[in-house]
Amino acid sequence: MSQKLSTPKGTRDFFSLELKKRNFLLNVLRDSFESFNFQEIQTPSIENLSTLINKYGDEEDSLMFKILSSGEKIKKADINSFKDGNLYGFANSLSDKALRYDLTVPLSRFVKQNLNEITFPFKRFQTQLVWRADRPQKGRFREFLQCDVDIIGEKNYLNEVECIKIYDYVFEKLGLPKLILRINNREVLEGISKIMNIENLSVISSTLDKSDKIGIDQVKGELVKKDINAESIDKLLFFLNIDGSNQYKIDKLREEFNINKISTDSIDLIEKIIDTCNQFELKNIELKFDLSLARGLGYYTGTIVEVSAPKEFSIGSIGGGGRYDNLVQENNPKLSGFGISFGFDRIFLILEELNLFPNLLDSSKSFLFLNFGNDKILNFINSINKLREDGIVCEIYPSDIKIKKQLDYANKKGIDFVVIIGEDELKKDIFKVKDMSKGDESTYSQINSLVEKIKEIS
Amino acid sequence: MSQKLSTPKGTRDFFSLELKKRNFLLNVLRDSFESFNFQEIQTPSIENLSTLINKYGDEEDSLMFKILSSGEKIKKADINSFKDGNLYGFANSLSDKALRYDLTVPLSRFVKQNLNEITFPFKRFQTQLVWRADRPQKGRFREFLQCDVDIIGEKNYLNEVECIKIYDYVFEKLGLPKLILRINNREVLEGISKIMNIENLSVISSTLDKSDKIGIDQVKGELVKKDINAESIDKLLFFLNIDGSNQYKIDKLREEFNINKISTDSIDLIEKIIDTCNQFELKNIELKFDLSLARGLGYYTGTIVEVSAPKEFSIGSIGGGGRYDNLVQENNPKLSGFGISFGFDRIFLILEELNLFPNLLDSSKSFLFLNFGNDKILNFINSINKLREDGIVCEIYPSDIKIKKQLDYANKKGIDFVVIIGEDELKKDIFKVKDMSKGDESTYSQINSLVEKIKEIS
Repeated sequence: MSQKLSTPKGTRDFFSLELKKRNFLLNVLRDSFESFNFQEIQTPSIENLSTLINKYGDEEDSLMFKILSSGEKIKKADINSFKDGNLYGFANSLSDKALRYDLTVPLSRFVKQNLNEITFPFKRFQTQLVWRADRPQKGRFREFLQCDVDIIGEKNYLNEVECIKIYDYVFEKLGLPKLILRINNREVLEGISKIMNIENLSVISSTLDKSDKIGIDQVKGELVKKDINAESIDKLLFFLNIDGSNQYKIDKLREEFNINKISTDSIDLIEKIIDTCNQFELKNIELKFDLSLARGLGYYTGTIVEVSAPKEFSIGSIGGGGRYDNLVQENNPKLSGFGISFGFDRIFLILEELNLFPNLLDSSKSFLFLNFGNDKILNFINSINKLREDGIVCEIYPSDIKIKKQLDYANKKGIDFVVIIGEDELKKDIFKVKDMSKGDESTYSQINSLVEKIKEIS
Repeated sequence: MSQKLSTPKGTRDFFSLELKKRNFLLNVLRDSFESFNFQEIQTPSIENLSTLINKYGDEEDSLMFKILSSGEKIKKADINSFKDGNLYGFANSLSDKALRYDLTVPLSRFVKQNLNEITFPFKRFQTQLVWRADRPQKGRFREFLQCDVDIIGEKNYLNEVECIKIYDYVFEKLGLPKLILRINNREVLEGISKIMNIENLSVISSTLDKSDKIGIDQVKGELVKKDINAESIDKLLFFLNIDGSNQYKIDKLREEFNINKISTDSIDLIEKIIDTCNQFELKNIELKFDLSLARGLGYYTGTIVEVSAPKEFSIGSIGGGGRYDNLVQENNPKLSGFGISFGFDRIFLILEELNLFPNLLDSSKSFLFLNFGNDKILNFINSINKLREDGIVCEIYPSDIKIKKQLDYANKKGIDFVVIIGEDELKKDIFKVKDMSKGDESTYSQINSLVEKIKEIS
């Protein structure tokens, strides 16, 4: 049969060197989450469709990788829907499971299912793959790692502060330049839409959210197209044009909200978060109160945050999160949650381009024992045993091909030292160790001192 | 909408404590593979169907989780097949991708695709999830972790020896009791079928493979049903009944093969592997040449190995592998491979039941700072910063609820120490640290010595 020699669109193979870098980044994240005493959970890659569907939005639902029902279940295929051109209905009759689309909805399912076993406030972290049938582009894949921390069961703004501090802690550890974290609040946006006389926030949110990309003029154009009247648009532009320090924006906004008799609780909250963060001595994060931040309004109910990539990288955000009151228990704000996510692949890309990965991802030296015949290996096979037990990386070349080829292998694989025990060495009871980076070769007496000598070298 | 509060059949959620144990096991495996200088790769969870299908067998193909084509692609549905009751054809028209079924076929695809970038012999390890729509049972799930090591591009029996040594190395590290590793060779089985006058090995292999479960009598019964004549059956039973040491079996078999003018190369190979392993001082593995071992004959072409769980566990094998000459490059034996797999979940189960996980999976002590009001926290928020930077696990209770409730949380979460800095302590410039396991409370003077003191305690 014909063989497509590729991975599916938007998916990747990883080689050893890249994985060492990925594991480095992953470990920085995981260790940081643990320093803040978040606890790890894992959920299955596959969830019931009933768990996932209608949680994100129609577009997101259409981007899920659905699992085709197997065996007899496929008999339930809704052929009438197919004939009627209702591909969505047809697809739904063929599947009752899908691949995880993010880590938040599975967390919500996990919490509901295990309410009695969980200690609240539940501080969990999760670093697992998610899948989206999105159009692949730079730094965006169809299979990618998400790294999330969430606190569920607490509404205090200290949760927001702690999560912002985690961003700061991680980005400092990675050696990234100072990054801007934009902060906003859904209720602030709702206050603004009230002032604009707009019933539903969703009318303006998508336009707002891309305003930093498209600019004020196009924002205006889009809103006109949406039949929003000129007075309302002017009000919105007035808010977007408030320029100055966070405190100036907060004061100005509070003034306007008071004039319009709209609660300023959400503004007070932002003020408290920013003030406490400032006390917390953020080192790598600059907070910016930004009214145009309007991400995730499908589920975020309060604070919204987003960290932008350094300016020179046009890859959008490298992390974001928010407060969700209804995701875990509908209409039970006791299980309010706040969580943030790290964009693993984009952060990886930045570390790579800024050359921020440590030079020595491998601290242990590796040794290749040349093969002069399987019978000769028996003379030192147990020394290799002992070295491995002491954590020293050793391998024997698996056949007695030409020594030049074995050395080629050592070179290509980046082996540090080659150990030479051929017929001549066995006769003289000596062994040689060749330093592959320097090219030096040293001779040592007594093969029974092999373990000791190599431990010294390593 | 109705909400199924469960994970799909055969899949699992993992809590923090279980993950600590799983990570412990995974790290032992990964560190061991690295000690033998195997290099990690990762492949996507999703592969093109053309990569996976027709590699394992019809039964396995039907157990793959296929991905439903999305968007317009679903229009290709082969409705005629559906009407004809050809569910297999119908399913194939709806999908061109599937979830990884094992790690070997993706490895084969990876090698073919990256021939020029790989240094051969290619020693790779891979620890990733695989998915099978199998009937779940004890120790068997639909989503599970596979841990594989393979050497590709070498036929020397030293590869077999090294992999057997890896089993030994890992099982010793885990503290498992001595385990039996059964070894056989496809060509030995083919020799036997020749002596039986049977054309195709597959006629007897499935029966043979379960002979240790069903016993000799049922083996006989099954073969009679398969219309194998009595003389052939007697010959097979003669071989299966050869009892004694590995060397005795090898000698006896060699004798029979010589009489029947069948090449004894495969027997010589088993002898060499066993001899070299004996020189290698296996500590946790006892080798057993077993003619009834007939697993994976769909792709294994030479040596076959399998490690059984300790007798008291009726969960089958906990690892297995073999030599495959044709999987990577059809008819190009230069890319012969040998690989083994570790049954992660079954090994986990055994470690759990034999109480072999270390008591202290967490070496670092954790500290909870009680919350007497967010304003008071500002007095020591930067001490927490410093402690975290030194890798000390700290958290602040995220709201100022009743202290009793905060202490409950500390108890339930297994916090080691609680730090108390309330109004009274702030006035007196002191702080208290409560040891949660002992119940002791110590008082220290000077809040600005917090970092120093807590470092001493931790």
